[in-house]
Amino acid sequence: MDNLFFKNNGPFKLRDILKDLSLENYKNNYDQNIINIKDLLNSKANEITFFHSKKYKTIANNTKASFCITTKNLQNELPKSCMPIIVDNVLLSTSVVTAKFYPDSINDDFDNTVEEINKTKFNDKVKFGKNVLLGQNVSIGSNCMIGHNTIIEKNVSIGDNCIIGCNTIIRNCLIRNNVRILDNCVIGKHGFGFFPAQNKNLRYPHMGIVIIEDDCEIGCGSTIDRGSMSNTIIGKNTYLDNQIHIAHNVTIGENSIIAGQVGIAGSSIIGKNVKIGGQAGISGHLKIGNNVEIAGGSGVIKDIQDNSKVMGYPAKKIRQFLKENRWYTKLQL
Amino acid sequence: MDNLFFKNNGPFKLRDILKDLSLENYKNNYDQNIINIKDLLNSKANEITFFHSKKYKTIANNTKASFCITTKNLQNELPKSCMPIIVDNVLLSTSVVTAKFYPDSINDDFDNTVEEINKTKFNDKVKFGKNVLLGQNVSIGSNCMIGHNTIIEKNVSIGDNCIIGCNTIIRNCLIRNNVRILDNCVIGKHGFGFFPAQNKNLRYPHMGIVIIEDDCEIGCGSTIDRGSMSNTIIGKNTYLDNQIHIAHNVTIGENSIIAGQVGIAGSSIIGKNVKIGGQAGISGHLKIGNNVEIAGGSGVIKDIQDNSKVMGYPAKKIRQFLKENRWYTKLQL
Amino acid sequence: MDNLFFKNNGPFKLRDILKDLSLENYKNNYDQNIINIKDLLNSKANEITFFHSKKYKTIANNTKASFCITTKNLQNELPKSCMPIIVDNVLLSTSVVTAKFYPDSINDDFDNTVEEINKTKFNDKVKFGKNVLLGQNVSIGSNCMIGHNTIIEKNVSIGDNCIIGCNTIIRNCLIRNNVRILDNCVIGKHGFGFFPAQNKNLRYPHMGIVIIEDDCEIGCGSTIDRGSMSNTIIGKNTYLDNQIHIAHNVTIGENSIIAGQVGIAGSSIIGKNVKIGGQAGISGHLKIGNNVEIAGGSGVIKDIQDNSKVMGYPAKKIRQFLKENRWYTKLQL
Repeated sequence: MDNLFFKNNGPFKLRDILKDLSLENYKNNYDQNIINIKDLLNSKANEITFFHSKKYKTIANNTKASFCITTKNLQNELPKSCMPIIVDNVLLSTSVVTAKFYPDSINDDFDNTVEEINKTKFNDKVKFGKNVLLGQNVSIGSNCMIGHNTIIEKNVSIGDNCIIGCNTIIRNCLIRNNVRILDNCVIGKHGFGFFPAQNKNLRYPHMGIVIIEDDCEIGCGSTIDRGSMSNTIIGKNTYLDNQIHIAHNVTIGENSIIAGQVGIAGSSIIGKNVKIGGQAGISGHLKIGNNVEIAGGSGVIKDIQDNSKVMGYPAKKIRQFLKENRWYTKLQL
Repeated sequence: MDNLFFKNNGPFKLRDILKDLSLENYKNNYDQNIINIKDLLNSKANEITFFHSKKYKTIANNTKASFCITTKNLQNELPKSCMPIIVDNVLLSTSVVTAKFYPDSINDDFDNTVEEINKTKFNDKVKFGKNVLLGQNVSIGSNCMIGHNTIIEKNVSIGDNCIIGCNTIIRNCLIRNNVRILDNCVIGKHGFGFFPAQNKNLRYPHMGIVIIEDDCEIGCGSTIDRGSMSNTIIGKNTYLDNQIHIAHNVTIGENSIIAGQVGIAGSSIIGKNVKIGGQAGISGHLKIGNNVEIAGGSGVIKDIQDNSKVMGYPAKKIRQFLKENRWYTKLQL
Repeated sequence: MDNLFFKNNGPFKLRDILKDLSLENYKNNYDQNIINIKDLLNSKANEITFFHSKKYKTIANNTKASFCITTKNLQNELPKSCMPIIVDNVLLSTSVVTAKFYPDSINDDFDNTVEEINKTKFNDKVKFGKNVLLGQNVSIGSNCMIGHNTIIEKNVSIGDNCIIGCNTIIRNCLIRNNVRILDNCVIGKHGFGFFPAQNKNLRYPHMGIVIIEDDCEIGCGSTIDRGSMSNTIIGKNTYLDNQIHIAHNVTIGENSIIAGQVGIAGSSIIGKNVKIGGQAGISGHLKIGNNVEIAGGSGVIKDIQDNSKVMGYPAKKIRQFLKENRWYTKLQL
């Protein structure tokens, strides 16, 4: 992706980047310009990428990047057009370089560029409540409503016919058409991603955004974090109930229904037409297929194929769960 | 119930209602007036009701309604005084008719009728913080306090000696006396009820309200949704901790204690003197008896009799749970 | 602890305290002054304390308090220098006496002493958003930021380089340096502690505060309650994700990482370097050791030793959990 919202402070000389990574053994005269940092799939010539796990071998074989932060063991998977930059900890080094290109993507200080909406060009275009604040780089389509005390911070694009509730805070977010976001939500803040360290954790950049497709509804008190290197995406016509937490880099497919207090951990991919019952939890980095049903209260810790129905902690096929708990149906509580 | 808060746009001619339901096979000359829509139990002559499940057979046998949206199979359960209107999907058709009578009950757009409290008649009567907004059709008893940034939207009745915290949003709510509602709550928004459909779900009306009886306390960050056809009720002297979610149509009895992050799904009825531990979840449409104790983290998926103590997921009698986990008491973690 | 924030209304005559406890059988001429109420460990001469469980026998043996609310059975554990005051319900009586010394610690009415920050001495010292309110007895260090609509109520001390988000409410809280508190949090309200009673529960005082040590991060929508007789403490460099609930009197050690939607019930002590996965719950009054890892979704109902890894509900050693669920790893969902 070319970054929609975060300002790219590049290009930087390769030499400077190596210096930031304390790679003194590299030659000092590397004066090529590096213009951006992206993931393996999306990076192009004169850009830098990163490769930290064999899982991504096939993509690495074909990357178009000119430079790649990686390890000794993985370097041979890269094409000849891509120069490996060997480090001990790929993610940590990637974090350092990302922060160099996108310094704004680390911190979520409150947006002090905001203005009262009635002092902006949206005064006549949007129906709004009291004390609504808008940051810079905000666009709003036709026929939208924004409730009292809501803060649309910088880097938000809202489509047509959208309804935003009261006391909600949004930044770094692309909202399509006919979307409803209810009260007290926080959308687009950095995810819970950092390198743990004694005394002072190192926070890593979140240069991804949140994308909410057409016809979605987001319930009261929900939080949706923006992605780190990729985006957090809520598919078309997907409804979220109250008090839901969607972590960074999560993708949810279209036509899904997610009940109250569900939590989805970072980087999990949820299919379309998925139903998730209240308080269920889904671990990070999982792949949940299409048409899956997850019973309320379940704890999902592995991938789920298309069309499966699961229940329990750890979640198993609902048929198996009910069979094991057959005594239960006769039980009087 | 006669609706306290939502404006009834009726009466409508039977002919017009049939047309909205695309029931062309009905005679075109039905020009009776239908004055309201209610549930089976509460509807009266010249009103329309709905009947979608054998579970409600006995009530259907005795309904006072003059018209009833139902199915071919169920129609014979209705008394002669009640004309059946046969449809394929009772709830969907009921939703269409309810929306006709109560168009305000579908959407929860922010309340743009609000005024700053110091410009209302409550300026001298209520102790209030900065930036407090009041909507139309709001009443407030004596000796009440309302915190900073709180929005009492339209259709709220507050009794005496009530304390509302900061950043809280309330609408469509009847609050009795001596009630405390803490900060960052959202109370009275429509529930998570809709007819799933590819591309665009159909939201159904929520013409119920939230009733909070005397001496209750509602913890910070909690959400309580209003009912669809009936009300959501919190009984006298019941205390809710922080971050609790109470879905639409739930009833909780008096003197109950509900710990943090509990979720209660739609239409469940909780008895009195019930204790629910933190993070427990209760599925929808259940009946939990009086004096029940539900251990923290439990997942309740069936009815519970009076005086039972349960634990686990699925929740079982606590004696059984502890017996099965007897090894556990000796275990050193 | 000497109370940082709550005003001590004492001293009171012993005679008056006995009268409040309806202890008419005590002599009427007790006119000693009692200057404060504290726990067994911290109380000194001329102060009153309480002792309600054998668990605290050793501390009781050595208390420096001159007076102690206790039971007939426990009274002999007190040193001669400490006069026992025998009651039926120690905690209830302690609550009555605490309320006498610290009447402000019972209720959390909104803080009506607040002023807009630009009318205070912090106008030039702090970088702040719109509509920021500050209560009395607030101090703020150098290089701090406070977001829009945030309310720093009375009795808050903020160190240097702290960042507070938007829509957050804080009171009775000691925040050290380099702390980040994100949006929509509520910190420092009284815990969910009261004596259940038919018709009208009796709320007990919370004279403890919240202490957030250096370099912590608190995620969006989290709630941290202040302590009752002791403090709620978040250790140095500990990170909390979104929608977390920390109940009263909890202590969390340094360098801990707590994922989204976790709940920790009252008075539990969590060690340092602890990792807790999303949606896990920890019961009250537990001791969790250092370097413990608790898997997401776990329900912890007993103490955990240093260095243990646990999973499940009830949580067991992760090795045991995985062994019991060995079939699970082969299972295709």
